[in-house]
Amino acid sequence: MGGVLTHSLLEKIRTKTATIGVIGMGYIGLQLLDAFGQKGFPIVGFDIDEHKIECFKKGDSTISYLPLKELFALLGKSFEASIDPTILNRADVVVVSVPTNIDKHLVPNFDLLRKAFQTVVNQFREGQLIIVQSTTYPGTTEDELLPMLKKLKKRFYLGYVPEISDPGNVEYNFTSIPRMTSGLTTECLEMVNALYESIGCQVYPCASMKVAEAAKVYTNAYRLLNISFANEMKVLFDKMGMDIWEVIEAASTKPFGFAPFYPSPGAGGDCIPVDPSYLSWKGTEFDAKATLIDQALRINQEMPHYVIDKLRDALNKPLKSARVLVLGVAFKKDVNGLQESASLKILNLLPDADFHDPYIEKVNEKRAIELNYDRLSDYDAVIIATDHSVYDYGKIVEKSLLVIDTRNATAGFSQKKVVKA
Amino acid sequence: MGGVLTHSLLEKIRTKTATIGVIGMGYIGLQLLDAFGQKGFPIVGFDIDEHKIECFKKGDSTISYLPLKELFALLGKSFEASIDPTILNRADVVVVSVPTNIDKHLVPNFDLLRKAFQTVVNQFREGQLIIVQSTTYPGTTEDELLPMLKKLKKRFYLGYVPEISDPGNVEYNFTSIPRMTSGLTTECLEMVNALYESIGCQVYPCASMKVAEAAKVYTNAYRLLNISFANEMKVLFDKMGMDIWEVIEAASTKPFGFAPFYPSPGAGGDCIPVDPSYLSWKGTEFDAKATLIDQALRINQEMPHYVIDKLRDALNKPLKSARVLVLGVAFKKDVNGLQESASLKILNLLPDADFHDPYIEKVNEKRAIELNYDRLSDYDAVIIATDHSVYDYGKIVEKSLLVIDTRNATAGFSQKKVVKA
Repeated sequence: MGGVLTHSLLEKIRTKTATIGVIGMGYIGLQLLDAFGQKGFPIVGFDIDEHKIECFKKGDSTISYLPLKELFALLGKSFEASIDPTILNRADVVVVSVPTNIDKHLVPNFDLLRKAFQTVVNQFREGQLIIVQSTTYPGTTEDELLPMLKKLKKRFYLGYVPEISDPGNVEYNFTSIPRMTSGLTTECLEMVNALYESIGCQVYPCASMKVAEAAKVYTNAYRLLNISFANEMKVLFDKMGMDIWEVIEAASTKPFGFAPFYPSPGAGGDCIPVDPSYLSWKGTEFDAKATLIDQALRINQEMPHYVIDKLRDALNKPLKSARVLVLGVAFKKDVNGLQESASLKILNLLPDADFHDPYIEKVNEKRAIELNYDRLSDYDAVIIATDHSVYDYGKIVEKSLLVIDTRNATAGFSQKKVVKA
Repeated sequence: MGGVLTHSLLEKIRTKTATIGVIGMGYIGLQLLDAFGQKGFPIVGFDIDEHKIECFKKGDSTISYLPLKELFALLGKSFEASIDPTILNRADVVVVSVPTNIDKHLVPNFDLLRKAFQTVVNQFREGQLIIVQSTTYPGTTEDELLPMLKKLKKRFYLGYVPEISDPGNVEYNFTSIPRMTSGLTTECLEMVNALYESIGCQVYPCASMKVAEAAKVYTNAYRLLNISFANEMKVLFDKMGMDIWEVIEAASTKPFGFAPFYPSPGAGGDCIPVDPSYLSWKGTEFDAKATLIDQALRINQEMPHYVIDKLRDALNKPLKSARVLVLGVAFKKDVNGLQESASLKILNLLPDADFHDPYIEKVNEKRAIELNYDRLSDYDAVIIATDHSVYDYGKIVEKSLLVIDTRNATAGFSQKKVVKA
């Protein structure tokens, strides 16, 4: 490492002539490409999903809240997207941005990340800066990718910069979120910092790549823990004859030392219900406990079942003969993703139920119904599972026979026909 | 209730001529007396501890961070303090402000509160407004105090207003913290609101007394949960070769969705390690689980033992023959309280250790040593247990042979002789 090459890569970064490559063009990889592309960097993207790239060419990001029109306008100019991995060889910087996930037994699955590492190594070109952005267990970059790169016996730079974003939150964009940076060596870190600073990011250099990896997962674990706490307390308060939403609203008046988290049918998405398991899984190797994370994951799993229990109690007929409509199946308000969606789990627990979601046409073999508020009374119960902004909750309450509200979306309307769950 | 009496009590509140009585003159009861006393209300206080009242008369609050000189200047004028409960009979408003606590088996103990209720009822005078301020399980005021008052067959007003404070935090005082108010009836709530508004408090009326009780405990549970999470992760990260303080510092750069909580030898004080158990205990009656609270309480209990484990590993000799000094035994930085102090637990786990605390002279039969930085090398290990501001941490690191730092107080100084615990 070092010497002329360092200088030339740093120089290319500073002059925005370094080609930035991304492996994995999901909502994270695309945002990074967009951020660098808009600042004038040549960008290249590799993904294994041909259909996705076809959509991009038509200007469709496939992500409801992230249109990225300006990014796709660069296609054929400074942006090239391909299903051919050799495109990565042209990049000066390669960012690994593939998802990691969890199986039905809450066991993490890093297969995609490892395959991506192999692809990066196969396409490696001397002097490249490789940055891992995927969320993973502390130690991954140094323990898994570094040995593969070392075997090449070529000059390389290596860093880890976790992805920080909040799907659907328009208050922050890529460059307005500080970046936790890290590098294998001081030189690597310097390069990583220069890269993110070149597009206007504030950087926070971490003590090591492992610390940066841990910090990201730690923030997700904090959120899961507090959401699961709200959910466990929801059940407890309900049994004691209280509405947790009232309790949290009161508690939120405390001007210090409290941050409200709200109940739901469970946290969904790529991060919150998934990433915390990496700490627990990795900790086990060291005989270290993560009991709060484990329990928070379990509570999160149980929540859709709790909603079904509340539905069953509220119905005037057996659940199996009831007509039920599930409103919203995406993992979060106003997004079209289904990753680890608790609302989808509710739908799956009700095989005969209909569903509607403004952003999702089809789930498995089931098509969304056309939403007609005047026909809501055809259903014995309507479950507000994901509280998309486009719904008219006043009308839902007015027109339904029974509403199971998992999001407090009916607050402010008559609660006579409403059961919170 | 109602009619002329209501009018006359409301009038007395608005003209600041209502006498405000407090049962239990701890740091909470005293702050309330101070707030009303300074605004011109006549105030009376009852406590069973004669020694405490003697101290007050000498102008000593007995609480290091709360001198309350102006309050004690009112003694013999508009303020009367007594060990005779009949003094409460003179009050128009009686605030119950006695502590609740937890035993060694994490079982809540409400004996003092129930005795206080009995005292209030014994001294009850027609038309009084009784406000419970003690932290307790949701339902206490309605289930325990209300039936006692009803039996008297006299007119009364009843409310619950939880205490919200942060010992040692000078940013907020009694009137600058919004008050969660509640009352048995609308009339009671109106009276309670008028009372707190009369001294300039912002009020947040809760849906019921139970909700106000729950909201208070909920905020404590949130804190305990997050502190215990930081502590469990501290152990895990340490085994993985990371310093959790570095991880949390990095995570804190996330501009949304994260609030840092820091590791420690365990949360102490009257509230955080105690109050959450009330929810768990009460929930059990309803077959409702509070698994996260239960686990957070257990982690909090285990932490002092973890510190001892780290000490044992770091020493070059058996623990039983080592000379150990514990710095700081109060439950929190810059306070003199010992309630549920984790640092005190560390001292108790080391029967032969010396201790020093600028605010505490004696613990059980053990006297604090005189602190001489040049003599720190007499000890095989110095444990920073409570990180009082008066300590010179640079000197502690310089002069000690081995420092066990439970608070990251040595950050910025050479870490050669330091073991984080």
